[in-house]
Amino acid sequence: MKMDQLREALPQWVDASRIFAKGGKVASYIPELAKAPGDSLGITIMDASGETASAGDKHCPFTMQSISKVFTLLLALMDNGEEEVFAKVGMEPTGDDFNSMLKLELVEPGKPFNPLINAGAIAVSSLIRGDSPAAKTERILAFFNEAAGGASLAINQDVFRSESATAHRNRSLAYFLKDNEVLGEDIDVEDVLSVYFQHCSIEICCDQLARMALLLSFDGFDPLAGRQIVPKRYVQIAKTFMIMCGMYNASGEFAIKVGIPAKSGVSGGILAIVPGRYGIGVIGPALGAKGNSTAGVHLLESMSAALDWRIF
Amino acid sequence: MKMDQLREALPQWVDASRIFAKGGKVASYIPELAKAPGDSLGITIMDASGETASAGDKHCPFTMQSISKVFTLLLALMDNGEEEVFAKVGMEPTGDDFNSMLKLELVEPGKPFNPLINAGAIAVSSLIRGDSPAAKTERILAFFNEAAGGASLAINQDVFRSESATAHRNRSLAYFLKDNEVLGEDIDVEDVLSVYFQHCSIEICCDQLARMALLLSFDGFDPLAGRQIVPKRYVQIAKTFMIMCGMYNASGEFAIKVGIPAKSGVSGGILAIVPGRYGIGVIGPALGAKGNSTAGVHLLESMSAALDWRIF
Amino acid sequence: MKMDQLREALPQWVDASRIFAKGGKVASYIPELAKAPGDSLGITIMDASGETASAGDKHCPFTMQSISKVFTLLLALMDNGEEEVFAKVGMEPTGDDFNSMLKLELVEPGKPFNPLINAGAIAVSSLIRGDSPAAKTERILAFFNEAAGGASLAINQDVFRSESATAHRNRSLAYFLKDNEVLGEDIDVEDVLSVYFQHCSIEICCDQLARMALLLSFDGFDPLAGRQIVPKRYVQIAKTFMIMCGMYNASGEFAIKVGIPAKSGVSGGILAIVPGRYGIGVIGPALGAKGNSTAGVHLLESMSAALDWRIF
Amino acid sequence: MKMDQLREALPQWVDASRIFAKGGKVASYIPELAKAPGDSLGITIMDASGETASAGDKHCPFTMQSISKVFTLLLALMDNGEEEVFAKVGMEPTGDDFNSMLKLELVEPGKPFNPLINAGAIAVSSLIRGDSPAAKTERILAFFNEAAGGASLAINQDVFRSESATAHRNRSLAYFLKDNEVLGEDIDVEDVLSVYFQHCSIEICCDQLARMALLLSFDGFDPLAGRQIVPKRYVQIAKTFMIMCGMYNASGEFAIKVGIPAKSGVSGGILAIVPGRYGIGVIGPALGAKGNSTAGVHLLESMSAALDWRIF
Repeated sequence: MKMDQLREALPQWVDASRIFAKGGKVASYIPELAKAPGDSLGITIMDASGETASAGDKHCPFTMQSISKVFTLLLALMDNGEEEVFAKVGMEPTGDDFNSMLKLELVEPGKPFNPLINAGAIAVSSLIRGDSPAAKTERILAFFNEAAGGASLAINQDVFRSESATAHRNRSLAYFLKDNEVLGEDIDVEDVLSVYFQHCSIEICCDQLARMALLLSFDGFDPLAGRQIVPKRYVQIAKTFMIMCGMYNASGEFAIKVGIPAKSGVSGGILAIVPGRYGIGVIGPALGAKGNSTAGVHLLESMSAALDWRIF
Repeated sequence: MKMDQLREALPQWVDASRIFAKGGKVASYIPELAKAPGDSLGITIMDASGETASAGDKHCPFTMQSISKVFTLLLALMDNGEEEVFAKVGMEPTGDDFNSMLKLELVEPGKPFNPLINAGAIAVSSLIRGDSPAAKTERILAFFNEAAGGASLAINQDVFRSESATAHRNRSLAYFLKDNEVLGEDIDVEDVLSVYFQHCSIEICCDQLARMALLLSFDGFDPLAGRQIVPKRYVQIAKTFMIMCGMYNASGEFAIKVGIPAKSGVSGGILAIVPGRYGIGVIGPALGAKGNSTAGVHLLESMSAALDWRIF
Repeated sequence: MKMDQLREALPQWVDASRIFAKGGKVASYIPELAKAPGDSLGITIMDASGETASAGDKHCPFTMQSISKVFTLLLALMDNGEEEVFAKVGMEPTGDDFNSMLKLELVEPGKPFNPLINAGAIAVSSLIRGDSPAAKTERILAFFNEAAGGASLAINQDVFRSESATAHRNRSLAYFLKDNEVLGEDIDVEDVLSVYFQHCSIEICCDQLARMALLLSFDGFDPLAGRQIVPKRYVQIAKTFMIMCGMYNASGEFAIKVGIPAKSGVSGGILAIVPGRYGIGVIGPALGAKGNSTAGVHLLESMSAALDWRIF
Repeated sequence: MKMDQLREALPQWVDASRIFAKGGKVASYIPELAKAPGDSLGITIMDASGETASAGDKHCPFTMQSISKVFTLLLALMDNGEEEVFAKVGMEPTGDDFNSMLKLELVEPGKPFNPLINAGAIAVSSLIRGDSPAAKTERILAFFNEAAGGASLAINQDVFRSESATAHRNRSLAYFLKDNEVLGEDIDVEDVLSVYFQHCSIEICCDQLARMALLLSFDGFDPLAGRQIVPKRYVQIAKTFMIMCGMYNASGEFAIKVGIPAKSGVSGGILAIVPGRYGIGVIGPALGAKGNSTAGVHLLESMSAALDWRIF
């Protein structure tokens, strides 16, 4: 389907999926997130020429939340290499909730199973280079902006403060990692959490998210800028994690039903890619039981089926 | 790389990987399996024209063990459709051992997380049509033979008896499923286990395994027979599970490092596919800590890297 | 309080506790048990002279269910000694449900935590001497009858058949024990379960249960027969387990609130002792969330508080 | 046995038990604790007249560690009453390690199972009255000193700092409780931990510990001062918890083998009571796998057997 056809058809798909927002609920555990309009749904699809098809509620900006974990993983890999990163986090899906501590306690040697669950993403945040939390955050923002094709993303300070004040479970996870020496002696837990909460609080809109997805879709090569921004190998790793555990513990179901690499966040955002073809950004704040946008997942599922996007 | 080049290069790859057998151990929990030669390694790669490249120890036949689960899943899907199958098993990787009962007890509603862990495969076995365990087993064998291009696979009765006599953990799993009503009132546990143990005990060799893999590689279309044997959608499902949980709780690592759909068995066999190109059968009886052939995984990893087989 | 005073006061206590039956539900997982009248409550208290005070619904007989585990433990200790018994079961409360498999899988070496959870009681049943399940069951019945002062207890065949046909979770536990070699190579799982289901199905009434409790109250010495039936040490062990885990995973609460050794069963029976003073039998079929008779627990709690029965 | 006989016999018991220190290891997770002499063993037994029998290494003072939890529970009960305390902590043993998070995550509503595991003791610390951590700690010290018959116990600042700096697992537990709202909105986690680490760091010697135990032995009545210091009901509760979970997840074994209420600490101290007769303080820094003094447990076991101390 050509981009102009897609542009034309997109509103109908969005309309057909929007009602699935009723089956979800806006996340409330971070008070600031609870303000998002639960019945909205928006999407942008971008191809290699930078052309886009958009539809639905703009509802921009929203915070990246867990979507940011994909790009902090890439930055950590560029900063440290595979070996050092995978000394701190594993490569396996957990089957547990994203904030679960079960496997940290039950499975030796107590390192997080993968970089996309909270514990793993906190460990990854500790690996970003920089002399201070502020310096690390600045480098993260700079990288995200480059990945978004020269955007000017910024941190939503209200969300950051709200997360920082209420995310006791993440503190609990971080101190567990500290106890397990996944966070080393020289690492201050609150410093790591500050970096983590800040990159989760980066604001974005669907167009920018689609632009970031495009980079992954072309294996780290920016087709608009005409240069390799992230080594291909690291993007392959990231895409694999997106398939294995990008949609929390509904990743298997998403892989079966939609079949493309994606990463969701509790703000209701989803970054998805059709490898070699599209970068996609979706927002739909109402979440299902496992933390994914109900309307957003339905939209991607119906489009993937209709347009044969599956990678399997 | 053309098939004749592959044929020429293959022995070197096999030789380079064979030493990794030393890092593994032949499975002993089924006494009959313990007799396999631990230091052997063999592989067959087949393309759409039926041409093959083989190298290493023939060590044929070996029993399929968990590899059979992929094909009983396909048969169950053909017999019952998606809806009925996924009423009994889930779609998520577990992060736990293949014979773990944790999630069955901890996660409501107590159905197995996916069809490739033991609990899930037992549930799938219960869905195969047939008036008796013997009739079901016969249908399974007929389907496997068709998938293998008209082979004459048979059950290794010694292994079957050995498994049946010693696999108390599988009995424990099956009765747990019975208690959870995943196995319904009309289903006799020993009957289901008999079917399960029999399809695990089907003997095969690398050539035949590669032939079965070829069918998956072409989405259920047999390129040699020239006809669709399994609906494409069901093979997509099977391939997704192979990526998500085909290599037990080392599936994530395999996806990161090798990046192709595969399924291993405790006999040391691995069925792998390079979608649209090859079907692959590997045997290397020495297993690593997570139940996969150490030499076999190394062989696939080095070939995938060299020949760019990754799907991500 | 003298026995005639107790006799006079007892009906009021029973009446005051009976309404707590409304907060419970008769067990239904063994279909035959579901027939018990949910609103009934009865009690017998017996002293060293054999005098009794009784009140409430006779509702006799009922099956012993888990209460039987205390006495099979005593018989297993007499048959094998402490060392052999505790080679098969541990001495710790679990904090888990009585039929949980979590600790069997998670805690090495996989033996049941104590003899009063199902897994432990099944292991204990395997230790009873006898050439066949029938012979073992006969010895158990003979011991129970002796402990009950020469009673003629019998197995309720309907309940036994009902349990045997439906207790798949117990089968699952037993095969797990078999896999862990807690049940040795020479032990047939169905044989052990047959013994286990039979002693759970022994019918009893409050008077007889109080008589059996009296034996424990006097540390294995039968004050009416004037002789030591069970070695004191073994009764001490049994009483300790009754305090630690006699009331499933509400044992701590019972110890805090009631403070006497007791053992409950899913039929709604409770055997309790006031050491050196009374043996007590209670029946109240409506169970709370953790499997104990709601009215029965309330009755014992109010009497223990009023009459200062606590051992702590 | 009279006190002078006990005094005479005690050195032999101590000598016979001292070798069991070789089977243990001094705790090292709090660096300051690792300095204790691993092969030492000391004991003081005090009766209602205040007479004592002592033997072995004085090794005084040591820090109370988990032993303090019994007395902060008493103070919290006096400050808040039963209802409020048990709104925050449960009454059940866990079967898990003292610092486990499993049940906090797995069992709704996520409150700690009992006040003697770390999570529960942290919750209890939050209930001590006082306007500031310093004020709370002062009240705790004052109460401990009163319970010790007018002692001048003090906090070992080196141990306190060492614990505070390294106890990341306790921080993880505390933030988990905060997330579960066991620690309410108005409660600062570091404040609670400060109180908790300080009462764990109170220094004591065997004589003083025996004196504190004496108070429990007489149900809160101080037989030397001639007055009730703690309400009887609260001491009954404390004694019950000591039996159920005073010796970590070896409490069942201790109850079976020793049979008296006791509480151990990772410093190697044990407070034990023979109800109505003795208060006992023991120190033996070498710990077994489950965190109890190996030589200390052996000493109490052999004396309990010889002198018939069992409460069951």
